[in-house]
Amino acid sequence: MAYIKTPVKGMSDALPRDARLRQYVKGIISETYQKFGFSEIETPCVEHIENLTGKQGGENEKLIFKIMKRGEKLDLTTENPDDLCDSGLRYDLTVPLSRYYACNANNLPVPFKALQIGNVWRAERPQKGRFRQFVQCDIDILGDPSCLAEIELISATLTTLGKLGFEGFTVRVNDRRLLKAMAALCSFPEDDYDKIFIILDKLDKIGVEGVKNELLACGYAEENIDKYVSMFKDISENTDVAEYAERNSLSDGVAADAIKNIADILDCVKVNISDAVSCKLVFDPSLVRGMSYYTGTIFEIGMDGYSFSVAGGGRYDEMIGRFSGHKVPACGFSIGFERIVTILKDKGFEVPSSGGKYAVLVSKNADKQTMLNAFSKASSLREEGNTVLLTSRQKNVKFQKDQLLSEGYTEFIEF
Amino acid sequence: MAYIKTPVKGMSDALPRDARLRQYVKGIISETYQKFGFSEIETPCVEHIENLTGKQGGENEKLIFKIMKRGEKLDLTTENPDDLCDSGLRYDLTVPLSRYYACNANNLPVPFKALQIGNVWRAERPQKGRFRQFVQCDIDILGDPSCLAEIELISATLTTLGKLGFEGFTVRVNDRRLLKAMAALCSFPEDDYDKIFIILDKLDKIGVEGVKNELLACGYAEENIDKYVSMFKDISENTDVAEYAERNSLSDGVAADAIKNIADILDCVKVNISDAVSCKLVFDPSLVRGMSYYTGTIFEIGMDGYSFSVAGGGRYDEMIGRFSGHKVPACGFSIGFERIVTILKDKGFEVPSSGGKYAVLVSKNADKQTMLNAFSKASSLREEGNTVLLTSRQKNVKFQKDQLLSEGYTEFIEF
Repeated sequence: MAYIKTPVKGMSDALPRDARLRQYVKGIISETYQKFGFSEIETPCVEHIENLTGKQGGENEKLIFKIMKRGEKLDLTTENPDDLCDSGLRYDLTVPLSRYYACNANNLPVPFKALQIGNVWRAERPQKGRFRQFVQCDIDILGDPSCLAEIELISATLTTLGKLGFEGFTVRVNDRRLLKAMAALCSFPEDDYDKIFIILDKLDKIGVEGVKNELLACGYAEENIDKYVSMFKDISENTDVAEYAERNSLSDGVAADAIKNIADILDCVKVNISDAVSCKLVFDPSLVRGMSYYTGTIFEIGMDGYSFSVAGGGRYDEMIGRFSGHKVPACGFSIGFERIVTILKDKGFEVPSSGGKYAVLVSKNADKQTMLNAFSKASSLREEGNTVLLTSRQKNVKFQKDQLLSEGYTEFIEF
Repeated sequence: MAYIKTPVKGMSDALPRDARLRQYVKGIISETYQKFGFSEIETPCVEHIENLTGKQGGENEKLIFKIMKRGEKLDLTTENPDDLCDSGLRYDLTVPLSRYYACNANNLPVPFKALQIGNVWRAERPQKGRFRQFVQCDIDILGDPSCLAEIELISATLTTLGKLGFEGFTVRVNDRRLLKAMAALCSFPEDDYDKIFIILDKLDKIGVEGVKNELLACGYAEENIDKYVSMFKDISENTDVAEYAERNSLSDGVAADAIKNIADILDCVKVNISDAVSCKLVFDPSLVRGMSYYTGTIFEIGMDGYSFSVAGGGRYDEMIGRFSGHKVPACGFSIGFERIVTILKDKGFEVPSSGGKYAVLVSKNADKQTMLNAFSKASSLREEGNTVLLTSRQKNVKFQKDQLLSEGYTEFIEF
């Protein structure tokens, strides 16, 4: 068989410059979240196929890289290819976290603030900027039913994005329970909520009239639809959550809880982060977020000048229980690692380096004393905190120096 | 299907304390190697099955986790299960590095100093301290045929181990070409060299007489065997390489090159590292190292008090060419990441932390002003550089504090 030089389909090699940026971003994320008391954990990249196909992953379950069984003769007479596999590569970090918590809760603090940065795999159709192996970066707080969890998640993530040099954040907050209460107020059938939210989620693109037309096409009564879309007509970044609740009769029961929660979150995040982090905190009753496992608060962070969000999350109080057998309140936030790396790369961001960068070039015909002099020089420069690349001088030394310049080496010493 | 709480067979979750240690060790390794001019790169964890089964991986090729084909209907009428897979999880970092270099050489400096830290997978029989997913940590210098490469690899690795707090190193150096010259001098058939080296490799355990007996059992002439084992009788950490070559008629041709190379390496490493790193540099003509792909220098690092080596490597000038089509000199060194983590863990090593570690515990019934006060306090402590975990106070606050103490939190503030 011939060897293949290119990476497998949809996955990519990182050249030194890109790898340095990726490592830098990982480092800042990890360091900042740890200052907020999140503990980094590690889970295996390979997960039981039963855990990956438990209907929590939605569409992602169709994209699993499946690993063939080992240690026994494969039964090739089967009609079902799934009989040949017993594990797969994880498609997110939430399934492994849920399994991890169910397995290790006795050895973890309560509440547990977890940080996980790791590769996940999805066999999506390859396209620009979308890879089949990519890094996810999640923080989760398990065991805290209060909004302290949301506030910490949002504050830590804003601080992290600030440390990466970003500014002009808008945090949008909503609550799944509020979305449901609003749909109930307009007499939509409960089984249709997810369908209705998917339409509402297009509000940005198609406007209030567009949402109305799509709901009409579903056959709902026009008066219900009118009532529904009227609630999204005059919302803005300045919409006050208490006033909004009052105006739309959302001040009772579960909806009232959600409203108080959102208000607390909006008020406390500001106090919990450095004044240097510039951000708007916004109640957005039209925020939906895709994952159907969310049960309460949902939130995302956008940045001035970018149409997509750079982080998103929410509360998912039901999921861990499916592994552990008893309900564990949980709330998580995921930073769009690959998006952030792409933005920084496009901005021409330079990873800061400490000390100088020296290239010590040694002639291929150097005698031993010359070599000793070169190594001695390299050693003392390193002791002073510099980066020192000691290497053979090439015939075309101008070309070699140009290459090294592009890698950030500014000082050259020849032996 | 029921969910499964435990990790897949042979793989493990890292609890916060262990994960922190692993991240710390990775950080020191990455930082120190980068100071020596090694560039971190990333390759996908998934590799073409053709590249994994090209006979470079030896025994590891039997341990591949194979990934099922996607994007087409699987042909279940096949008799060969390998027809169902087109990729697999990498079992080392050398195969991906070779592919990477063949694919990206035009965008890389010459010589190229690469650093790779990443997971690899081998379906070994699970046993204590051996996992099916584990981290490897390799440095390689591609494109440098001179011993500058070996000197840099060894110096950088000694410096890294020193930064991790280790001391009392012994670096053993030998050369595959010397091993072959010695076998040739004793008239062993060339096809049997690998078999003979495997026996020689047991010298530590079975002694000179043991080696002699095993060679006798293979049916070689006793006078050849006597000549061979006599060369390993009086070696010690003080064996001088030039004197040894003289005494054993190894001063011609390829053997002479190898001898000069070893002498240069032993002399230069000392000058290239800080005086603070305590190490012995030793010529060991009995050093074999297992991988048959080595073509020149081989070396390993041991530490006082440990019977196993903590890093090993050598020159493999033929391997990259199998991917790229033209010969590329290459030399690599691999640190035993999992061994080092285990040693540090067993020693009770504490990861150093900067600033204090505060736990701010907030009552579940706190009113908004109390919450604001708590967040304000947390924010100002973080601005001062401290780690601050803000979380809900639990009913059993004594138990909660004990848990947090064990996570390293020493200061408690209650709201």
